[in-house]
Amino acid sequence: MAEKFTRTLIDETSGHVEVLKEKTRKGAKPWQVWLDAELGLRNYWYPAALSRHLAEGEHKAVKLLGEEILLMRQKGRVFALEDRCPHRGVRFSARPLFYTKETLSCWYHTWTFDIETGQLRTILNEPDSPLIGKCGVKSYPVEERKGILFIFVGDEKPGPVENDVAPHFLDDNAVIYATEPYDIESNWRLACENGYDPGHQFIHNWSPLSLDMGMHTSFGYTSTPADLQETIDYRTEHGAPQGFTRKVQKTTFNHRAEIPLKDGTKKEIILPLARGKSEEELRKVTQIIYEGTVGLWLPCMLRVTTFPQPYCTHYEAYVPKDEKTHTYFQFGVIHTDDEEWADRWLTEEGPLLWEEPVVRGFTIDDAFARKEMQKFYGEEDGWNRERLYRPDVELTMWRKFASEHARGVQTREHAKGHFPR
Amino acid sequence: MAEKFTRTLIDETSGHVEVLKEKTRKGAKPWQVWLDAELGLRNYWYPAALSRHLAEGEHKAVKLLGEEILLMRQKGRVFALEDRCPHRGVRFSARPLFYTKETLSCWYHTWTFDIETGQLRTILNEPDSPLIGKCGVKSYPVEERKGILFIFVGDEKPGPVENDVAPHFLDDNAVIYATEPYDIESNWRLACENGYDPGHQFIHNWSPLSLDMGMHTSFGYTSTPADLQETIDYRTEHGAPQGFTRKVQKTTFNHRAEIPLKDGTKKEIILPLARGKSEEELRKVTQIIYEGTVGLWLPCMLRVTTFPQPYCTHYEAYVPKDEKTHTYFQFGVIHTDDEEWADRWLTEEGPLLWEEPVVRGFTIDDAFARKEMQKFYGEEDGWNRERLYRPDVELTMWRKFASEHARGVQTREHAKGHFPR
Amino acid sequence: MAEKFTRTLIDETSGHVEVLKEKTRKGAKPWQVWLDAELGLRNYWYPAALSRHLAEGEHKAVKLLGEEILLMRQKGRVFALEDRCPHRGVRFSARPLFYTKETLSCWYHTWTFDIETGQLRTILNEPDSPLIGKCGVKSYPVEERKGILFIFVGDEKPGPVENDVAPHFLDDNAVIYATEPYDIESNWRLACENGYDPGHQFIHNWSPLSLDMGMHTSFGYTSTPADLQETIDYRTEHGAPQGFTRKVQKTTFNHRAEIPLKDGTKKEIILPLARGKSEEELRKVTQIIYEGTVGLWLPCMLRVTTFPQPYCTHYEAYVPKDEKTHTYFQFGVIHTDDEEWADRWLTEEGPLLWEEPVVRGFTIDDAFARKEMQKFYGEEDGWNRERLYRPDVELTMWRKFASEHARGVQTREHAKGHFPR
Repeated sequence: MAEKFTRTLIDETSGHVEVLKEKTRKGAKPWQVWLDAELGLRNYWYPAALSRHLAEGEHKAVKLLGEEILLMRQKGRVFALEDRCPHRGVRFSARPLFYTKETLSCWYHTWTFDIETGQLRTILNEPDSPLIGKCGVKSYPVEERKGILFIFVGDEKPGPVENDVAPHFLDDNAVIYATEPYDIESNWRLACENGYDPGHQFIHNWSPLSLDMGMHTSFGYTSTPADLQETIDYRTEHGAPQGFTRKVQKTTFNHRAEIPLKDGTKKEIILPLARGKSEEELRKVTQIIYEGTVGLWLPCMLRVTTFPQPYCTHYEAYVPKDEKTHTYFQFGVIHTDDEEWADRWLTEEGPLLWEEPVVRGFTIDDAFARKEMQKFYGEEDGWNRERLYRPDVELTMWRKFASEHARGVQTREHAKGHFPR
Repeated sequence: MAEKFTRTLIDETSGHVEVLKEKTRKGAKPWQVWLDAELGLRNYWYPAALSRHLAEGEHKAVKLLGEEILLMRQKGRVFALEDRCPHRGVRFSARPLFYTKETLSCWYHTWTFDIETGQLRTILNEPDSPLIGKCGVKSYPVEERKGILFIFVGDEKPGPVENDVAPHFLDDNAVIYATEPYDIESNWRLACENGYDPGHQFIHNWSPLSLDMGMHTSFGYTSTPADLQETIDYRTEHGAPQGFTRKVQKTTFNHRAEIPLKDGTKKEIILPLARGKSEEELRKVTQIIYEGTVGLWLPCMLRVTTFPQPYCTHYEAYVPKDEKTHTYFQFGVIHTDDEEWADRWLTEEGPLLWEEPVVRGFTIDDAFARKEMQKFYGEEDGWNRERLYRPDVELTMWRKFASEHARGVQTREHAKGHFPR
Repeated sequence: MAEKFTRTLIDETSGHVEVLKEKTRKGAKPWQVWLDAELGLRNYWYPAALSRHLAEGEHKAVKLLGEEILLMRQKGRVFALEDRCPHRGVRFSARPLFYTKETLSCWYHTWTFDIETGQLRTILNEPDSPLIGKCGVKSYPVEERKGILFIFVGDEKPGPVENDVAPHFLDDNAVIYATEPYDIESNWRLACENGYDPGHQFIHNWSPLSLDMGMHTSFGYTSTPADLQETIDYRTEHGAPQGFTRKVQKTTFNHRAEIPLKDGTKKEIILPLARGKSEEELRKVTQIIYEGTVGLWLPCMLRVTTFPQPYCTHYEAYVPKDEKTHTYFQFGVIHTDDEEWADRWLTEEGPLLWEEPVVRGFTIDDAFARKEMQKFYGEEDGWNRERLYRPDVELTMWRKFASEHARGVQTREHAKGHFPR
């Protein structure tokens, strides 16, 4: 069944890659939902901040899917309200007032809201106002898990957070080391596609990690449809993460290539870091990659196993901030019940064995590529002008997968805020 | 009569505050003129600069209601012309040339204009041009009063400046100390509303003046309709300033408030600076405010009496610059025939007893609030989304008052400039 | 014939200058092509950079008429390709890769293009892609002449570069000293008009060169139609530069002017640098200008002879970059077969006798004027609101000339890029 599904998806989407451009007119694309999801997918949990950003009594303003949200922690629990007073529209976050641990008062006219429900509980200078209890601001469901603050953006009843991240991310024995998230000026969809893209490995030839390790990466993966069918594992069940994973094992790593010259000869190009090494030596360097998997999960999370260490899993989330910005979260994760190792991972090994090589030495090149795509896709009609090639089949599979399974699409209207208009 | 008018205005506008939002649909508002007046009200005198900004022979470029204007002083008199040459549109102010005391020549092609009428008087390199006498730029009426340069923006015949400011501002015995005006990134209407807003006093709990004086201000005024009717004085006669004043005497100052808690109890909140003081002590601190009045006058001037000294009147004007900026003028005024005191006020007391506490220590918080409202009202359809409450009745009265009595509304077309198109 | 043509052009265009504004409604203008050419004229050669900007193996990204182009030099020859990969739209220039001297590879997914034709020659990670040979990017014709890199922007077959510059610019014996080009925030058409404008000389009264030399320039030229007819030389033949030249000899230089005063008298104004000098002395100073010519040539080049030395010709080009920016190229040229002098010109005399007085001391005031016009023409509908006068006849002649002879107009659609959409 899963096999048949894969087959169909490859067929359907590869058709859109290899046919001539004129046949893929706008409107004829099987991934329209993805094209519409400029501001993100709605009705999902998203990482919004890290627990360490929000001490008791403190607040933090964030923007998710275009919505402005105020995070607050009181009595240890975290609350999230729309950051806009319904009275005259000012941001609470400009001067948030917590006169009680249950309430947030606006600094301008003392409207006082329940931090859990968002309902207007009183107005300090007009306690008999007929508005009390009849208006309020949107309250967002919050979950705090393993040092991460998740917010649910949408209207539906939220399910478990575990379903909206990549598999095993929140398993009981997962030990998560989180680096500082940062904003990248690029639409979140470009980040998803770059992260999973089998062709993009080429850019990591410039990465400090590759240079330091003498790791030659490749000119980019190419898999045959047959291999893809064998190595891809789709998960579409409800009540669990939805996404798919590819085993790297059957992927061709190219470190040699040829360019045909005008005189009829060919010039062989070898990746600089691959030169002078035997095939066996080369294979040894990239062996760890062959053993791993890469997977993309709704709404926006990537999981890479056995990276950069055999026992380590790399997760990253591309959280939509607005049309042209996403917030980049990265996590180095081990799974263990050994508390001593867990502690070591969070304090010594995480920073040294994951953050330094991966965050400082590797994914900065992904950030570069995502930013470089933004102009074309954001201003130059790139989604309709792009000309895909065979390795992009995996991206179009994702586009179609996301289009079929997404719970909803965020619109500009949603982003305007939630109190009645 | 005035009483009946007040009654009606309160009724008509309070209806729009307290009814549920869905009943106040766009188009149903009784203050449509106010909503349209993004660029200001037309056919009024406006403070444009201070006399001290313009020495003999000098010039200054200003922008009023979106119109670009060049101020010039020749033989002691001040003139104002549209700052845009009709020939090729360059700003005269880039390199203004005063070859005679009667004329302004363009730096680009020598077109030479009468600084009083704006008519093209000659062209230095084509003195026989048929255009001479047949074209020109708009000339603005200018009045210089007590150190302030007023410009009339509009098409009608201007009346006396005295009618377009708050009462007594230009009385013979008024002694006006003017602080340096500055621009605030906020629409001028938000400034008017913040200045008069009975609920906004709460923000002055953060003001340096309040902290220095141990003055607790309040959580915000609330007046009953009956009190309002008694304390508000409307002036709608032609040939005099139009606006209204409220006596503060019957206003409730709240420095205690309660927040109902989930467990059924209430938490009493006392303003920090009010704590530990008896009612009598508290009343003493705010006594000066009770004795005063606050009034708003067309087109854009606020008057506060007995502030911050019993003998001092604070005036401020919110002059529209463009859609999202106003220029903030502030004046500390005494009324006296004692020339010695007048001189002392302008040199020593004004800076010390008015400018330091009010300009540096108080109105900076108003500037903060106005800026914070701009995003909502400027970009997020705030004029239609705001949800008003009872204290806002006084603002809606002003909106309706201004809508009824305004001489005209400035449009983007006006702001484009005046020579024939 | 040429005489009749001139007569007609003067008649036709002067009608549009001297009649009242209401008669020159939009749509009735005889220079509509000029109004449409915001992004430049299409199907011409343009200076894009200087040879010294591009050493062997190096690259440079430029923007011409809104098109983003990558210049590359390999084996001494210069190539130009659209700077946008058809795959996912990234700029090659972010990290250009030259694995062979015949190809440019994209840093993202190894798509490899022929630098001469722009055709996709191979993809390093998918060498069997059916796209190879079937897609590519636009390749721009390039000519390198006398230290200048010219690019042809358009679709037609390019003719000789010599036809798209002012006469004699590329003659065999021309020795061209090029100053560093720079960008000016002004539409290219305003630059053309300012450069040729007979009225604009007035602005050079502020120029360092005028001040240093005690050269009074004038209040601006005015020529009679009869003089114009005698001194203007049109060139409209195909296969040669198209444009026109005016001999300055019959031009009136005004250094005296009068301003009529209200009291009926007139005030005589003499240019500061002309005061206290006899007519003969004055004539001596400006003699060199009388001997010269000024000419404007399609698409965007100005030529001034005998400036600033009798043996020197000043050329400048206003290359459209985008709607509101042009790149300003300036060249000091002598024509000689004396190799020693040629060498001296390029190393010593050019910098001293042309660049210092003209580039540093004179044309900076033209740059100032062009920038000052941009707001009116770019944002305030200036092309329809301007009110021209008699000296502008020469500009309207140019507008009409350009409208009649231009090979094409660049549109925003052209600027979006050239691979199939």
